[in-house]
Amino acid sequence: MSGDTIDAEPGTVYLVGSGPGDPDLLTVKAKRLLEAADVVLHDKLPGPEIIETLPEDRREDVGKRAGGERTPQSEINERLVELAREGKSVVRLKGGDSFVFGRGGEEAEYLAAREVPFEVVPAVTSAIAAPAVAGIPVTHRDHASSVSFVTGHEDPTKEESAVDWDALAATGGTIVVLMGVGRLPDYTKALREAGMAPETPVALVERGTWPGQQVATGTLETIVDARDEAGISPPAVTVIGDVAGTRESVVDFLQNDYGAAEGGE
Amino acid sequence: MSGDTIDAEPGTVYLVGSGPGDPDLLTVKAKRLLEAADVVLHDKLPGPEIIETLPEDRREDVGKRAGGERTPQSEINERLVELAREGKSVVRLKGGDSFVFGRGGEEAEYLAAREVPFEVVPAVTSAIAAPAVAGIPVTHRDHASSVSFVTGHEDPTKEESAVDWDALAATGGTIVVLMGVGRLPDYTKALREAGMAPETPVALVERGTWPGQQVATGTLETIVDARDEAGISPPAVTVIGDVAGTRESVVDFLQNDYGAAEGGE
Ligand SMILES: C[S@@+](CC[C@H](N)C(=O)[O-])C[C@H]1O[C@@H](n2cnc3c(N)ncnc32)[C@H](O)[C@@H]1O
Ligand SMILES: C[S@@+](CC[C@H](N)C(=O)[O-])C[C@H]1O[C@@H](n2cnc3c(N)ncnc32)[C@H](O)[C@@H]1O
Repeated sequence: MSGDTIDAEPGTVYLVGSGPGDPDLLTVKAKRLLEAADVVLHDKLPGPEIIETLPEDRREDVGKRAGGERTPQSEINERLVELAREGKSVVRLKGGDSFVFGRGGEEAEYLAAREVPFEVVPAVTSAIAAPAVAGIPVTHRDHASSVSFVTGHEDPTKEESAVDWDALAATGGTIVVLMGVGRLPDYTKALREAGMAPETPVALVERGTWPGQQVATGTLETIVDARDEAGISPPAVTVIGDVAGTRESVVDFLQNDYGAAEGGE
Repeated sequence: MSGDTIDAEPGTVYLVGSGPGDPDLLTVKAKRLLEAADVVLHDKLPGPEIIETLPEDRREDVGKRAGGERTPQSEINERLVELAREGKSVVRLKGGDSFVFGRGGEEAEYLAAREVPFEVVPAVTSAIAAPAVAGIPVTHRDHASSVSFVTGHEDPTKEESAVDWDALAATGGTIVVLMGVGRLPDYTKALREAGMAPETPVALVERGTWPGQQVATGTLETIVDARDEAGISPPAVTVIGDVAGTRESVVDFLQNDYGAAEGGE
């Protein structure tokens, strides 16, 4: 039981999700590990409020290298092993949950292959939380018996490269697109071509639970314009499906207050 | 920002997820609200460890009524309104995340329609966390560009009653089935008939992060037998897809220890 391992163990890597960005949405365990670990490896996605609480001398930003380009995953993997072998307790901190488009699976495999003990600390994913704090439930008894999380920015080097938008449309459930601000025109078109009604509600939630949270709403037909009007930029999630339309009926009494600006129709 | 509303406000309902069951996986905010609220309405799904920390005189079990049958949702909705109108700060505590098959959407709509202010507190969903602590990432760069959460126990009174297993199979992504222990034979058959390979890896994770966590593994063809051998019973999630097969390569170095018994092949 985790209660028995309150402290960060030397030589162990903790794959920890930060949640969507509000420090209050860290788990109790993540908060404790961030305080106790010898080193925290992070990028920018956990958001400014969480990152600024990390002590300078115990954190390494592995998001961008000096030149501005991304640190290759192989380098991060190697650094994790190196630190653990030095006997450090290491937190690998990712935005949201490490196992939802967070490369936690690859890191786990790399560590295990090198016999480095590791622990997974699940977290609140932005795919659920960003819609939620905007008043949108990803499932709903009357509207959606399933929800699919999908990347809007597929790895083009992958062999079977394309996400199957036809199949996603056919599920009839909610679709939440991560990393999908730039290609919004492409996949909203694909979903309409797959037979989804042009008036299907869509919402964009940018920086959910961060100080500058923004929401834009529209339909499969209007959301690209709504995005541009509201000036939505990454990180944001796109929620597609009838659930996105329920926001309107609850938002006046929703007390979650992240200084949400509102765009769209 | 949530930091400004540390205390539970009188007359407000907090729709709070408990996470999968380990008290360390409560969010910081959920923990604080559970301590501060005048009343906590809950059922059994948050699990024994969290429920036993709730003070007797401030909690109401709305899971089962005296006769043993389920409390109707309409009664729970009405009770939330009643308590809020008495000026109480009210936590509605659900297992996992309230907006993932948790009826949080319905509760939000009911409250808003009666002009009761409410706040949503997102949480760690069992759909991600139960696989994760068993060593299974629901997405993986090499294996799954999407993940779908689906109910294995569709509301039969619904007009479009069936989950579209053909479409889910066609996504090519991971499928996580909630409430799907009983109907495991039905939907594994449906997925095979939809063209998924019989050797597709499948894992069942029962009571993920609870003291008695259990895991059973197999394939679309063998998992029903594995379930029976291991004696898996609800609550459990079913993970279907190549990611379920990666567990084997990491589990020896995975330190998450919930006293996991192991079943299946
Ligand atoms: C590489 S993925 C990581 C997802 C993360 N592991 C999770 O569970 O939330 C990055 C994408 O997550 C989404 N995202 C992360 N944090 C967000 C937030 N606070 N609000 C909205 N979207 C967010 C955006 O779609 C972003 O492009
Ligand atoms: C009504 S749904 C609620 C889901 C919940 N809102 C969530 O986000 O996890 C109930 C189902 O959740 C799953 N579940 C909840 N807690 C679980 C746990 N600790 N381990 C495995 N499955 C769990 C099971 O599939 C169960 O039948």
